[in-house]
Amino acid sequence: MTLSNGRHYLAIPGPSVMPDEVLAAMHQPAPNIYEGDIVTLMEGVTRDLKTIAGTTGQVALYGANGHGVWEASLANVAAPGDMVLVLSNGRFGMGWAEMAQGLGIETRILDCGMSAASDPARLEEALRADGDKRIKAVLVCHVDTSSGVLNDVAGLRTAMDAAGHPALLMVDCIASFACDRYEMDAWGADVTLAGSQKGLMTPPGMAMVWFNDRAAEVARGVKTSRYWDWTDRGNPEFPYQYFGGTTLTHHMFGLRKALDMIKAEGREAIWARHDTLANSYWAAIDAFGAGGSMRLNVPDRAHRSRAITSVALPNGQGERLRLWCSENLGVTLGIGLGRTPPHDYFRIGHMGHINAHMALGVVGVLEAGMLSLGIAHGKGATSAAAEVIASATRPLSQAAE
Amino acid sequence: MTLSNGRHYLAIPGPSVMPDEVLAAMHQPAPNIYEGDIVTLMEGVTRDLKTIAGTTGQVALYGANGHGVWEASLANVAAPGDMVLVLSNGRFGMGWAEMAQGLGIETRILDCGMSAASDPARLEEALRADGDKRIKAVLVCHVDTSSGVLNDVAGLRTAMDAAGHPALLMVDCIASFACDRYEMDAWGADVTLAGSQKGLMTPPGMAMVWFNDRAAEVARGVKTSRYWDWTDRGNPEFPYQYFGGTTLTHHMFGLRKALDMIKAEGREAIWARHDTLANSYWAAIDAFGAGGSMRLNVPDRAHRSRAITSVALPNGQGERLRLWCSENLGVTLGIGLGRTPPHDYFRIGHMGHINAHMALGVVGVLEAGMLSLGIAHGKGATSAAAEVIASATRPLSQAAE
Amino acid sequence: MTLSNGRHYLAIPGPSVMPDEVLAAMHQPAPNIYEGDIVTLMEGVTRDLKTIAGTTGQVALYGANGHGVWEASLANVAAPGDMVLVLSNGRFGMGWAEMAQGLGIETRILDCGMSAASDPARLEEALRADGDKRIKAVLVCHVDTSSGVLNDVAGLRTAMDAAGHPALLMVDCIASFACDRYEMDAWGADVTLAGSQKGLMTPPGMAMVWFNDRAAEVARGVKTSRYWDWTDRGNPEFPYQYFGGTTLTHHMFGLRKALDMIKAEGREAIWARHDTLANSYWAAIDAFGAGGSMRLNVPDRAHRSRAITSVALPNGQGERLRLWCSENLGVTLGIGLGRTPPHDYFRIGHMGHINAHMALGVVGVLEAGMLSLGIAHGKGATSAAAEVIASATRPLSQAAE
Amino acid sequence: MTLSNGRHYLAIPGPSVMPDEVLAAMHQPAPNIYEGDIVTLMEGVTRDLKTIAGTTGQVALYGANGHGVWEASLANVAAPGDMVLVLSNGRFGMGWAEMAQGLGIETRILDCGMSAASDPARLEEALRADGDKRIKAVLVCHVDTSSGVLNDVAGLRTAMDAAGHPALLMVDCIASFACDRYEMDAWGADVTLAGSQKGLMTPPGMAMVWFNDRAAEVARGVKTSRYWDWTDRGNPEFPYQYFGGTTLTHHMFGLRKALDMIKAEGREAIWARHDTLANSYWAAIDAFGAGGSMRLNVPDRAHRSRAITSVALPNGQGERLRLWCSENLGVTLGIGLGRTPPHDYFRIGHMGHINAHMALGVVGVLEAGMLSLGIAHGKGATSAAAEVIASATRPLSQAAE
Repeated sequence: MTLSNGRHYLAIPGPSVMPDEVLAAMHQPAPNIYEGDIVTLMEGVTRDLKTIAGTTGQVALYGANGHGVWEASLANVAAPGDMVLVLSNGRFGMGWAEMAQGLGIETRILDCGMSAASDPARLEEALRADGDKRIKAVLVCHVDTSSGVLNDVAGLRTAMDAAGHPALLMVDCIASFACDRYEMDAWGADVTLAGSQKGLMTPPGMAMVWFNDRAAEVARGVKTSRYWDWTDRGNPEFPYQYFGGTTLTHHMFGLRKALDMIKAEGREAIWARHDTLANSYWAAIDAFGAGGSMRLNVPDRAHRSRAITSVALPNGQGERLRLWCSENLGVTLGIGLGRTPPHDYFRIGHMGHINAHMALGVVGVLEAGMLSLGIAHGKGATSAAAEVIASATRPLSQAAE
Repeated sequence: MTLSNGRHYLAIPGPSVMPDEVLAAMHQPAPNIYEGDIVTLMEGVTRDLKTIAGTTGQVALYGANGHGVWEASLANVAAPGDMVLVLSNGRFGMGWAEMAQGLGIETRILDCGMSAASDPARLEEALRADGDKRIKAVLVCHVDTSSGVLNDVAGLRTAMDAAGHPALLMVDCIASFACDRYEMDAWGADVTLAGSQKGLMTPPGMAMVWFNDRAAEVARGVKTSRYWDWTDRGNPEFPYQYFGGTTLTHHMFGLRKALDMIKAEGREAIWARHDTLANSYWAAIDAFGAGGSMRLNVPDRAHRSRAITSVALPNGQGERLRLWCSENLGVTLGIGLGRTPPHDYFRIGHMGHINAHMALGVVGVLEAGMLSLGIAHGKGATSAAAEVIASATRPLSQAAE
Repeated sequence: MTLSNGRHYLAIPGPSVMPDEVLAAMHQPAPNIYEGDIVTLMEGVTRDLKTIAGTTGQVALYGANGHGVWEASLANVAAPGDMVLVLSNGRFGMGWAEMAQGLGIETRILDCGMSAASDPARLEEALRADGDKRIKAVLVCHVDTSSGVLNDVAGLRTAMDAAGHPALLMVDCIASFACDRYEMDAWGADVTLAGSQKGLMTPPGMAMVWFNDRAAEVARGVKTSRYWDWTDRGNPEFPYQYFGGTTLTHHMFGLRKALDMIKAEGREAIWARHDTLANSYWAAIDAFGAGGSMRLNVPDRAHRSRAITSVALPNGQGERLRLWCSENLGVTLGIGLGRTPPHDYFRIGHMGHINAHMALGVVGVLEAGMLSLGIAHGKGATSAAAEVIASATRPLSQAAE
Repeated sequence: MTLSNGRHYLAIPGPSVMPDEVLAAMHQPAPNIYEGDIVTLMEGVTRDLKTIAGTTGQVALYGANGHGVWEASLANVAAPGDMVLVLSNGRFGMGWAEMAQGLGIETRILDCGMSAASDPARLEEALRADGDKRIKAVLVCHVDTSSGVLNDVAGLRTAMDAAGHPALLMVDCIASFACDRYEMDAWGADVTLAGSQKGLMTPPGMAMVWFNDRAAEVARGVKTSRYWDWTDRGNPEFPYQYFGGTTLTHHMFGLRKALDMIKAEGREAIWARHDTLANSYWAAIDAFGAGGSMRLNVPDRAHRSRAITSVALPNGQGERLRLWCSENLGVTLGIGLGRTPPHDYFRIGHMGHINAHMALGVVGVLEAGMLSLGIAHGKGATSAAAEVIASATRPLSQAAE
């Protein structure tokens, strides 16, 4: 017997659950790419993407995954021999640094481990030490997908300003976009990166780079690639320039629908939904941990992502539990990517198309798994999670009862 | 803010959740109906349907919903002026009786309420009282969708045999088929009814009637409708006879895929999955009820369906909770169909494409709803449900720890 | 090598080509059937169906194929022992008569063969001969799918009026609906039948019966079936009454989309499109016939359907050509259903979702087939068809050139 | 009235018609990218891609459109300051040259116009003139999408060998792949490029680069980009390396299905189908041209692509006809991309999922359009095309009749 034969729930930190509406929107014949709907929808797509990012700057679209826009963003602002400073909180911060190195860019890395945010004070110190202003850009993941650490982008910008350093602030929002609150202009980011396959709820293969006038000015002096060049993509004269060649027609069909759903819900409402569901997970894991060794990876609540939760469960039990849930009850959790040892961790993606039923079901599944596997754990996890949800939804009149 | 913006879960007692694979199978161009795949797949479909029903008899397919096969089954075995005996455990038993009356068939009804199974002793008594054997058929719902009551079909057959009455035993398995254990031949049913949209996980609009040689023999003397006539449908010479006209092409594409999934899992495994998940719900509701007024509608565990659970929650709280779950957390429960008052009940469908994650999520949602609405309830419902699931999945080596 | 590996074109007289939009609309999760969108869309669906039929009467929907609504329509107006008069122009007229006989209704048949329309004078004569007005209804196919014969419904009504006979006029528009011009009220039809799978471009399994007040009045005295009873279906108090039980959810999703497409194009424009494309086929077949033995089945242009063209090609060449096109070039034509011998005929469906490219492609395929098979034929068929199309589309300014 | 309301046919030179099966395969939930089906299918995908290309080398997959793999291929073999020789037959040859320039690579261009193939003799001469062997690679489009010119890759390799030059031969097969015969190893190409959206019948956004050992050896000395680096992609140790980050999950679902279709038909059969259909188009256009000014762009039959046909129709009539077909009859043709003036040309894509019905329909549509617009043209085009098709399909026994 298996108890998994129903709708499987993919609760990994990306790709996320694609809404039926998005998949349906992609299930249509290929269109003419020179005229018609696929051309006219582009303007709305880019406008909506800028609204969600909180910027009046420009956005360039790419046929690429997230690693591709790591390179795209760098290729516009740094030439071989230039230097960037990378703030790392996990595997993906390190990956961006390696991508820079691959382009011949010199990197300096401030490694903050995998359970704490990047420290603005250390950033300020590092920039002050860069007397000849060689650092062209500071690279940071808003959320590192491997650790679920959330960085304080506004605080990092404040530190850069305090240091009086002209470097660009480039932020990888691939894991956090449309999940964790983000305000590109207000927080002082110059370049932002995201991909289709997480908060934007669209299959992998499309990614985007937002850039402001400061970044555009820097880019004017750097010409290392025609494909990655964001100039025409951000401000196209002809339709084919949006994607520097053939439009990603079906991705655009899907993304258009996803953006419609995002607009209908509203940016603040989406952030609030992710906040509530993340808090419900944290309450549940704390409850499990009260009677066992399960722990949230990030101790400081202020630096936890609302898109991803990394959970520690030692002695290889994290991996045992993850495999059990997948094989037996229809829930796939994320692996302990980049951890040592990897089997002592698992990750829960709660990004994009996720509601309370899906989250509460995962809590119940974790409890069933620990019962089945004999892993010690505290009671009342679902009640704790349900209380967070009830508090967020309880009408005032009810609260008084 | 809403916490429902993810995959909604339709947990009503039919239509059930359609697997992505089934919907995808239906998303294809219309085929030629005189030659090719749609013709060749019919034989396998009917063979598999007979296997699932546990019969060596025949099966007739209809373009119709469940109400349609109520009429189809009657039109083959009873003419105007004939009499049938209906055993009722809810709205659907009564509905079948009304359908018979509409055909001019005289009905006698043994009403057992909505919380208890039909009593074999009362059936035997009623048949013994039918001295001139006017009753041509005994009609019973294996499970009445409105109440979740499960009848003991084998026991009812034993009572009929004890009474020495020649009436046919006709069983409506619309709600229970491929969820609750059913053995048409072994249990002595002569006619069985089911529809596409519940355990068979395919959209509504297709239904079927199985019949054995005894029923076929009775039908030979009754000719009231060419459309409902099961003779050619059950044993077609030409492809169009399967559906007495145009084949339901897209339903067949979907049903073929659903049957593939059912075969891959296996009949016993499917029944065991439904049994475990139903038991997990019952444990959860008992836990909720220990601290409040929530109750299972059917006190006797032996007469509860594994496809549907009817839950009582008085003072209109059932309907309040149902609406809250739908509006806030993305779960749609079934209404208190046929109850007085209807708002004191709700129903949970757990039929077909359902796994532990989906069920445990509903338990968590119910808890959040009662917290939000201030409805008194006991603690530990998810733990109770998870324990049922863990017990069913725990390997022997673990059980010893 | 095969030259068929592209989009196959199913050019049979139903099921027709389902638009991608319709299939996509059906590819969605099952909805709640008691509340929400599926309930609210019903009113618009029935309103639109009445508009297309040209009636202010009512429409009843059924989970059934076309044969099902043959029985549904009869069961409402005629009881066993009643009499109907059937005008037949092919296999489907005869089929409706057999369905009546199955219900115990006495039938009289005016058979006009398979290449000519029903003669109003013969109808008038037959009604005048019915001195005691036993005939309760006159049954006629607007278009008989097997022959492509189109009847003059208004002319038949005039004949009935001239005879002063009170029988209902019941018209099977299954093949013609939303293809050939039809005006239920203006032409004096009392009952109209159609199915989902032809001009309505939705998979088989759903059908409908329109009826006016006269027919409703007759039905009040006839109660033979609760399932087929059109009273509540045509004027439902509760949502489940639309389908007398479970709603055909996915058919309704598809039909709603098909009706949107029909409304967007407009009834007159749809009839004009079918008229032009049918005329282009007739021109092509006349051209082929000028150099060989291919002939249109219906000599009189006024009695040819715009939805179906039946073509004669003697000595079994019809079937050879049909098979060749299907196996080699990706076009499936309809068989010579109901003909003697069947292999001397084939049929072309040009109903619903069909444009000039699809039709002209079939003409080219027929030519290639006859070339390949060595079947004698005239030249210039595509030019003749293209000329019909160009004439229908040529702007005035061009015509003057 | 419109005559386009049926299945529209997108007959542009890419994106091509996506088979229903491919779109359906992409319509499924996102999978886990670290384990399971999406990982195991990768090996088969790369193996099949190598088989189709006719190589025992390696293939690297990219999230990118065709322009992306122009850059990908260059970034592996040439560093800034290196030189490449570009053979151009249209807009896309020039585009590849511009992409090289964007990377800082020096380019020399042999421009052969837009109606003739690249001349091996001129290539040999150019290479002999490169005394210090600065040219690292020769770049050529197998077919230039803008002109439909087909180059003789084997002949170009012979010229390179004759010149004794060590440059790599890099071939852009984006337009021709799986349409025009291509044998990477046998013909001596070192690097081959293709995209998903033409002969591979999958939406745009995925592209691939095949490379042999010689090219891999050259690449070892060139490290300009980690993202484009083909080393790990071509020979991955971990699943994420196939795409250098997140797998293009849904593209892979679609491509897997497309490759299944290609394998089922067979490489030779696919080439033969494209050859026959292209020849049928050429015969039709010659027939049209016999009575007017329509001309095939490439006079030399040996240098015409079987995937794209470029057609000249002077005085802006090409564009008028193109627009008329799109607006009136449901066929979208390709624009005169890169021509002067562009409105004197249109292009027909006949790549991938195309059969005889689709092609013959286009011929008929062109004839209707010219009739409607008053454009002079010869008669008998469809007959000429049909004769080509009949000749290709006529069995020997028929030929003797």
